[in-house]
Amino acid sequence: MQTLHIQLENRSYPIYIGEGLLSKIKLIEPHLKQKHVAIVTNTTVAPLYLDPLLALFKQHSIKAFSIILPDGESYKNQETLNLIYDALLKEKCERSVTLIALGGGVIGDMTGYAAATYLRGVPFIQIPTTLLSQVDSSVGGKTGINHALGKNMIGAFYQPQCVIIDMDTLKTLPQREFSAGMAEVIKYGLIRDKAFFDWLEKNMEGLMKLNPSLLIEAIERSCKNKANVVEMDEHESGVRATLNLGHTFGHAIENAMGYGVWLHGEAVATGIVMAANLSKLMGWLTEIEFNRIVTLLKVAKLPVDPPQISEDQYMQLMRMDKKVVDGKIRLVLQKGIGDSVITSDYDTNHLKSTLQIQKFSV
Amino acid sequence: MQTLHIQLENRSYPIYIGEGLLSKIKLIEPHLKQKHVAIVTNTTVAPLYLDPLLALFKQHSIKAFSIILPDGESYKNQETLNLIYDALLKEKCERSVTLIALGGGVIGDMTGYAAATYLRGVPFIQIPTTLLSQVDSSVGGKTGINHALGKNMIGAFYQPQCVIIDMDTLKTLPQREFSAGMAEVIKYGLIRDKAFFDWLEKNMEGLMKLNPSLLIEAIERSCKNKANVVEMDEHESGVRATLNLGHTFGHAIENAMGYGVWLHGEAVATGIVMAANLSKLMGWLTEIEFNRIVTLLKVAKLPVDPPQISEDQYMQLMRMDKKVVDGKIRLVLQKGIGDSVITSDYDTNHLKSTLQIQKFSV
Repeated sequence: MQTLHIQLENRSYPIYIGEGLLSKIKLIEPHLKQKHVAIVTNTTVAPLYLDPLLALFKQHSIKAFSIILPDGESYKNQETLNLIYDALLKEKCERSVTLIALGGGVIGDMTGYAAATYLRGVPFIQIPTTLLSQVDSSVGGKTGINHALGKNMIGAFYQPQCVIIDMDTLKTLPQREFSAGMAEVIKYGLIRDKAFFDWLEKNMEGLMKLNPSLLIEAIERSCKNKANVVEMDEHESGVRATLNLGHTFGHAIENAMGYGVWLHGEAVATGIVMAANLSKLMGWLTEIEFNRIVTLLKVAKLPVDPPQISEDQYMQLMRMDKKVVDGKIRLVLQKGIGDSVITSDYDTNHLKSTLQIQKFSV
Repeated sequence: MQTLHIQLENRSYPIYIGEGLLSKIKLIEPHLKQKHVAIVTNTTVAPLYLDPLLALFKQHSIKAFSIILPDGESYKNQETLNLIYDALLKEKCERSVTLIALGGGVIGDMTGYAAATYLRGVPFIQIPTTLLSQVDSSVGGKTGINHALGKNMIGAFYQPQCVIIDMDTLKTLPQREFSAGMAEVIKYGLIRDKAFFDWLEKNMEGLMKLNPSLLIEAIERSCKNKANVVEMDEHESGVRATLNLGHTFGHAIENAMGYGVWLHGEAVATGIVMAANLSKLMGWLTEIEFNRIVTLLKVAKLPVDPPQISEDQYMQLMRMDKKVVDGKIRLVLQKGIGDSVITSDYDTNHLKSTLQIQKFSV
């Protein structure tokens, strides 16, 4: 097992990464305020991992109950959040309860936000069960829900007590979702870690076959990269925004297609290609580097061609994205592999021509 | 004008107290991130103070729009909160917008919570227009909404950029609400400031006649007391709970009667008397001290006799209160005037007999 320590302004918390961690009570118990937990999960994950976890708690005299939500990004909203509040209140949970998020990014974001706001804040633990949530949403303290007018519009910065990443959960993850998570892994290489990108090129085939030691290394290096960025900038005023590589394009794709039609990571993958194309047009990325990016994403079985969205719709949706400052669309772009900038200093014509391209794959 | 500085862990903010402050742009403008504000107010306060404020902003080229909510504690809920989110999103407000809470405690709590959670946090300014919100809810960073199963169950700790307390707004405040605010003023004397309690006994008649210099002093001393307590204990793990003197009884009264039937301060006033009675039965407060408390509340035109609520209903509602630890009801009780304790170490029979008394007034 690997243990990372995330050090933030006010407090730090550990991320445990390894195999068979879900049965290790010693990873959870020291982080509980009292022996009372509420496990928040969904209808897909519950049949796989809920009963063993409940049995583990029972065995150690920890009072536990579960809140099972419908599965999917489309349920990441106020209505589903209310199901958590209602259950906590009906169980008369006090400030000493600990919420446990057992599931992917949607469960993590909603459970974290419920923890941030129930009785003005109770502790929570993340047990991410998808590659995406393991390398992305479980590190950094972003919690929240979507609003009809935009993604993640309502939320809070709120840190967990600890994060438990059990590789075994990836064995039950559909391949499409695994690939979607890999988009974020590749992103870390692109924005700040050229050596990691090179390593991923060399090992992507093994990763796609779920080789455990390769997976542990990929997740650890991803979490370290994210943690380093977050530690530098907890409230996203500066460098943290580079983590949004591909996301402004990606959010537009997700929004235009309807949440859940494209997986978040799939939209990000295509967004990464669009950002790379714009960077190439600006002369910041070579044709060879651009092709390496497209190729690696394709080996990870990710889409690299955008859906049919008009330039106007792109522009409108991208303007709604919350990274807009003073009405100008700021984008994360590449200045080579492993180097990124946040800038509005690009040629708008190059952005427009990028938005018109339907096919980036060779 | 008096200026208090609230010093918290991470940051500090000023509280301005004086007459005619609503027309002083120099108190607001330095606290804006950009020249873009959303004023959140209600149907009662808007006709009194909104237009001059909008005109003031226009005059100084600050882009401003208003969100006018229905008035009353019964609207302090998710549905009304959504009206704020919807308006902010429709106006395409970015992270640089500043929310301004113009109104009483309900407006302050909801606006603060909207600010804490919109785009994971935007700045806000408190302009409390009731005595209660001036001396209580505008200091300490408690924000939130009610849930059908309990008051203030959903919320966040979130601090404003500044608080502007303009005495002039008290001239339009109904007497009943003014008295309700005075309950919290008296509370500060009771829990930790005997000299202030003595001063209030001497000056309550002048305060009830809205003497401005007395009011400024009463508000300043109240805010100082609250600020001192909050500074010692921002997240309510210890001494801050003494601020809940009368509140566990009071919340039960508010809940049993239906939110809004008794004003919060009225319920607290009666709760203070019930806590004083239990303290007297425990031998911690003399008969004379008890009578001084009842008398001062009566001079402030506050109710001191509880409504008809059965002992069982009291116990059930009080157990739901979030100050319960390990299932035991902890109460704030008096150990004399100006001295309070948080304890579950009282004789339950004395609590029961207190809950049965219908009339404390002489």
